[in-house]
Amino acid sequence: MNPDITRERENATFNVEKLTHILDGGIEKTKRRREIESLVISDPDFQSEDLNFLSRSERYDAAVKKSAQMILKLREYGISDPEEIYCYKSVFRGNHQEALGLHFSMFLPTLYTQCNKEQFKKWVPLAESFKAMGTYAQTELGHGTHLRGLETTATYDPATQEFVLNSPTITSIKWWPGGLGKTSNHAIVLAQLHTQGKCHGLHAFIVPLRSMNTHIPLPGVVVGDIGPKFGFDEVDNGYLKLENVRIPREHMLMKYAKVEADGTYVKPPSAKLTYGTMVFIRSMIVGEAGSALAKSCTIAIRYSSVRHQSEIRPGEPEPQIMDYQTQQYKLFPLLATAYAYKFVGQYMNQVYHRITGDISQGDFSELPELHALSAGLKAFTTWTASEGIEVCRMACGGHGYSRCSALPDIYVNFVATCTYEGENTVMMLQTARFLIKSYQQVSAGHQLSGIVSYLNESERRLQPQSVSSRPTVLNVNDLASLVEAYKLRAAKLVEVAAKSIQQELQKRVSQEDAWNNSAIDLVRASNAHCHYVVVKLFAAKLGEIGDMGVHSVLSTLALLYALQGIQQHSGDFLQTGLLSVPQLSQVSQRLKELLAQLRPNAVALVDAFDYCDEMLNSVLGRYDGNVYEHMFEWARRSPLNKTEVHESYHKYLKPLQAKL
Amino acid sequence: MNPDITRERENATFNVEKLTHILDGGIEKTKRRREIESLVISDPDFQSEDLNFLSRSERYDAAVKKSAQMILKLREYGISDPEEIYCYKSVFRGNHQEALGLHFSMFLPTLYTQCNKEQFKKWVPLAESFKAMGTYAQTELGHGTHLRGLETTATYDPATQEFVLNSPTITSIKWWPGGLGKTSNHAIVLAQLHTQGKCHGLHAFIVPLRSMNTHIPLPGVVVGDIGPKFGFDEVDNGYLKLENVRIPREHMLMKYAKVEADGTYVKPPSAKLTYGTMVFIRSMIVGEAGSALAKSCTIAIRYSSVRHQSEIRPGEPEPQIMDYQTQQYKLFPLLATAYAYKFVGQYMNQVYHRITGDISQGDFSELPELHALSAGLKAFTTWTASEGIEVCRMACGGHGYSRCSALPDIYVNFVATCTYEGENTVMMLQTARFLIKSYQQVSAGHQLSGIVSYLNESERRLQPQSVSSRPTVLNVNDLASLVEAYKLRAAKLVEVAAKSIQQELQKRVSQEDAWNNSAIDLVRASNAHCHYVVVKLFAAKLGEIGDMGVHSVLSTLALLYALQGIQQHSGDFLQTGLLSVPQLSQVSQRLKELLAQLRPNAVALVDAFDYCDEMLNSVLGRYDGNVYEHMFEWARRSPLNKTEVHESYHKYLKPLQAKL
Repeated sequence: MNPDITRERENATFNVEKLTHILDGGIEKTKRRREIESLVISDPDFQSEDLNFLSRSERYDAAVKKSAQMILKLREYGISDPEEIYCYKSVFRGNHQEALGLHFSMFLPTLYTQCNKEQFKKWVPLAESFKAMGTYAQTELGHGTHLRGLETTATYDPATQEFVLNSPTITSIKWWPGGLGKTSNHAIVLAQLHTQGKCHGLHAFIVPLRSMNTHIPLPGVVVGDIGPKFGFDEVDNGYLKLENVRIPREHMLMKYAKVEADGTYVKPPSAKLTYGTMVFIRSMIVGEAGSALAKSCTIAIRYSSVRHQSEIRPGEPEPQIMDYQTQQYKLFPLLATAYAYKFVGQYMNQVYHRITGDISQGDFSELPELHALSAGLKAFTTWTASEGIEVCRMACGGHGYSRCSALPDIYVNFVATCTYEGENTVMMLQTARFLIKSYQQVSAGHQLSGIVSYLNESERRLQPQSVSSRPTVLNVNDLASLVEAYKLRAAKLVEVAAKSIQQELQKRVSQEDAWNNSAIDLVRASNAHCHYVVVKLFAAKLGEIGDMGVHSVLSTLALLYALQGIQQHSGDFLQTGLLSVPQLSQVSQRLKELLAQLRPNAVALVDAFDYCDEMLNSVLGRYDGNVYEHMFEWARRSPLNKTEVHESYHKYLKPLQAKL
Repeated sequence: MNPDITRERENATFNVEKLTHILDGGIEKTKRRREIESLVISDPDFQSEDLNFLSRSERYDAAVKKSAQMILKLREYGISDPEEIYCYKSVFRGNHQEALGLHFSMFLPTLYTQCNKEQFKKWVPLAESFKAMGTYAQTELGHGTHLRGLETTATYDPATQEFVLNSPTITSIKWWPGGLGKTSNHAIVLAQLHTQGKCHGLHAFIVPLRSMNTHIPLPGVVVGDIGPKFGFDEVDNGYLKLENVRIPREHMLMKYAKVEADGTYVKPPSAKLTYGTMVFIRSMIVGEAGSALAKSCTIAIRYSSVRHQSEIRPGEPEPQIMDYQTQQYKLFPLLATAYAYKFVGQYMNQVYHRITGDISQGDFSELPELHALSAGLKAFTTWTASEGIEVCRMACGGHGYSRCSALPDIYVNFVATCTYEGENTVMMLQTARFLIKSYQQVSAGHQLSGIVSYLNESERRLQPQSVSSRPTVLNVNDLASLVEAYKLRAAKLVEVAAKSIQQELQKRVSQEDAWNNSAIDLVRASNAHCHYVVVKLFAAKLGEIGDMGVHSVLSTLALLYALQGIQQHSGDFLQTGLLSVPQLSQVSQRLKELLAQLRPNAVALVDAFDYCDEMLNSVLGRYDGNVYEHMFEWARRSPLNKTEVHESYHKYLKPLQAKL
């Protein structure tokens, strides 16, 4: 154990284990999580070479192998609770992806929820036994977020009682689905349904892609890998071009909508039913933003405690780089953010489960709010976390750039969340739509409930006043006061966006153009709304914590989180008169004090996340702090070191020398 | 040609070719650049597979091949002017790196400048004929920016007239030098010189690493590749452990310092001489920040003009995504930034050449200012450009995540500049040191000249005044007024940092601790200083432009650049009373107008950068806008598509099905 990091742990002022229990949701959950983790870690079948040393084809091969092993192990150990499976997978995946990911996350759930009884009986056993390995093919080469734009067609032929599937244009080729390229032999394909000469919009079809015996693509199916990406190297994201592919009528998923034998179309009862999955996945992503940032902070903070560099005082030994104020200023606010997002993730999960209970009883009333919240928070947290991962990486200096730090892998795999499951700007505008609608309801005299109830006050509170005459609400030492400031900022920015739309409308442009011409303000309003929600939930979480030591350090983190946001967006707070210029210096000063206050607890705070070395897979983030010897050991395994002299020397360099 | 992009070009209001000449520095330079580019493009020897499809070893192999070819071609074509070589390399490298990069950028220049006459005669011909292929080994596993911390030793042994080189600890292993792992047979090694029982600090030594005949590592030389990184896949960044390696006395570079045969050490005449290269490389990086961002904008803006998605007005066809205000707000300020950095790069280049003239005549007076400026601007521009590349990538939606967009390559290769050649935060603090020194000189009654002369006014102008009594200086339509505002902001933030140091000193902490406890403010001051310099130089550039059309569009860009910075840092401007709250709404409004105004010229503005398709190597950024068919064609070449059925199916999936 590196003595520096031991000293850090000795200096902590709180009980790390207790904080871990809070993050897990209880002492029992921590225990079970660790049991599951040790199953993976101690399993010799999961020992494998660092994926970074392999070619893409080898990485894909390794991922398929792991996925196949995992399926057998989960059955062997009898792990079937979704939370426990999630936990198992988190360890076994590390910072990478699962080859059969979409089979579990999209193919199976869609079969469970959208098959009618006969379909269920046929397809679920096939899928659960992996005879049918599937993916979910929605996006197309030319079409992403805007579902109505999808071009793939499924035309019903009553003569044979079949659907004929086609990709009529180059832009209609299915593009991006994970596992589509090489792994899957089936796909649920979203296509525009045509029957009896009419288009009825998007519906889902089970399309066999490859022979279940030989895995060779079926006639009319042009399928393959879309090539290397920023990350997700081990996943065969694929393309699919359908050329008059015929499937039986029963391959349309018919729990809700139907096409009868003669081609008669039967509408589904409600459009809201598909909402749920989307909301669930976005809520999960919020928690994952917390995890990705927590991992990154673990690596950067542990490394900053063992790395010595330069000098603060001449003649003294090189200090730990965590003693530099600039390093603290980079890392500690991100640490606070990681905690904030972990708690927000917990909250979203609870709300989701509460609301799905309501939904199953036919009560959809809270769904729009949850939908708006999950969209905005997904965007808000993934943007910040992505930037934060890079800040952590660069805070490790040159070594952060090496794949041995794990930070490049964490970044490239996480940053994709900014784009998938709803592109972030589109998400922000969806939340804005809900906010503006709520604002208009207040203006029309309605009283709002739920998270946007703060807009009720806006009419009263936000009358134009001069800065000096407004009573100053902000107390930089009081979290409740800061939550209030974030609330008023959000209310103000929603108002600014709403007024921009009004002004545009007065220029006699259409409603739609007015919206587009106010889009910058709308995104800003959504950001402020989400920021308020996060600060509020972080503050609320503190109320649940009994242990004094843990409460104290989390309070410091929450205050740091809130104050840093105010400093970064000081213009908003000054603009709304929530903050005065002299207070801004107070904020700066207080921030510096909080950094110094957190310094002795930094390593303990990342230890509490409880990521084992096998999950981090980072030489810089090792629990024992013994970084350099392991870095050398890792480097020696580089594939370029397999031979002393690389063949390119004989091929190109020696001949070059001869020619000159 | 895609009709959308053709229409964009027809709508431009200025002459693209004229703007290209301005960027190149004249019509003749444009002509010569294009000649050189076409030499590479038309050369069948340089046609190669996309590096993204290759394994790391294959990529390294391909890079060595290309470097060897390039050397022969440059001789064949008689290209020897450094600017022309730079141009040639830019095309042939594309978005990747050169295998022999450090031989040219560090090994040869160090030999040229630090060899004495005899050494020059021996080593320069060896290096120029590539008998000696070299790199520059400075950083160590445990030591980066802080040179005095380096641990490698070179101990003189007068008995044999040799230096004995050692890596005494694990942290002293040389780490990171490009080309060190497999390519180089020599390295210039920086080591602590010990002679006659005394350490004389860092000196440079020529150390043979591998046999010049067989390329096998020499005894005592432990050398290899440090493993995969975020980018730079084709470069063999290496490690080097020296175990009692003996080199003749004449292998110490002795133009300045010397060790005589008996071991007597002779000091160099001046320490300032090594300054120059560093300043030059950092200045170059500023221009490269402009280029990286210009390439990224080219890709994202061209793609945004051919990509149609969602709807603004119901029932109408899907609009070009560039019509969304949010998309314009992402991309156009970055476009303005790319132009700004290109012009700043030109300026730095000119200043560097002027000042090196002075230096060669013994006049070092301007060096500290240039040193401070190049350090800060390197950090300022590389941070912003890196973030901007990612914004461009994500503005391309999912397809930006594919390696076929080229944006992942541009990012991972460029973002390294934030760390190498001086870690950015350290650079910012170096600039801050110059600013604080200047501020203290003014306080002591001195009058400053040069770029910091604005600090002369600070004492007078920045007296505390209430916001209302200060005459408002800002005119949001007048660039000169905005430059003034940036200047006053910089002056204010330098003052804030200086006062923070004073306050710390009053708490009786040491000078060094006061500095560290003010580091956040110091970095903020440097940022504001650099931002001011960029706005000022952009405005100054407009004065050189005669053509009305070009002048007009560049003026719009400059205004956008300045106003967006004010919006992003509105807290600073409000805080200093340079901006009033009502003006902030004006800034927002004006920004939206400028976005709309730039919209018709966006494609023409990226065309003017004049990157040919071969240099961009981006399917999304193609000049002809025919994105989708080429994306499909690219994907089909993915290595995973070499076989219809991947071997992993037979190895893992089929057996899995059998077991369940």
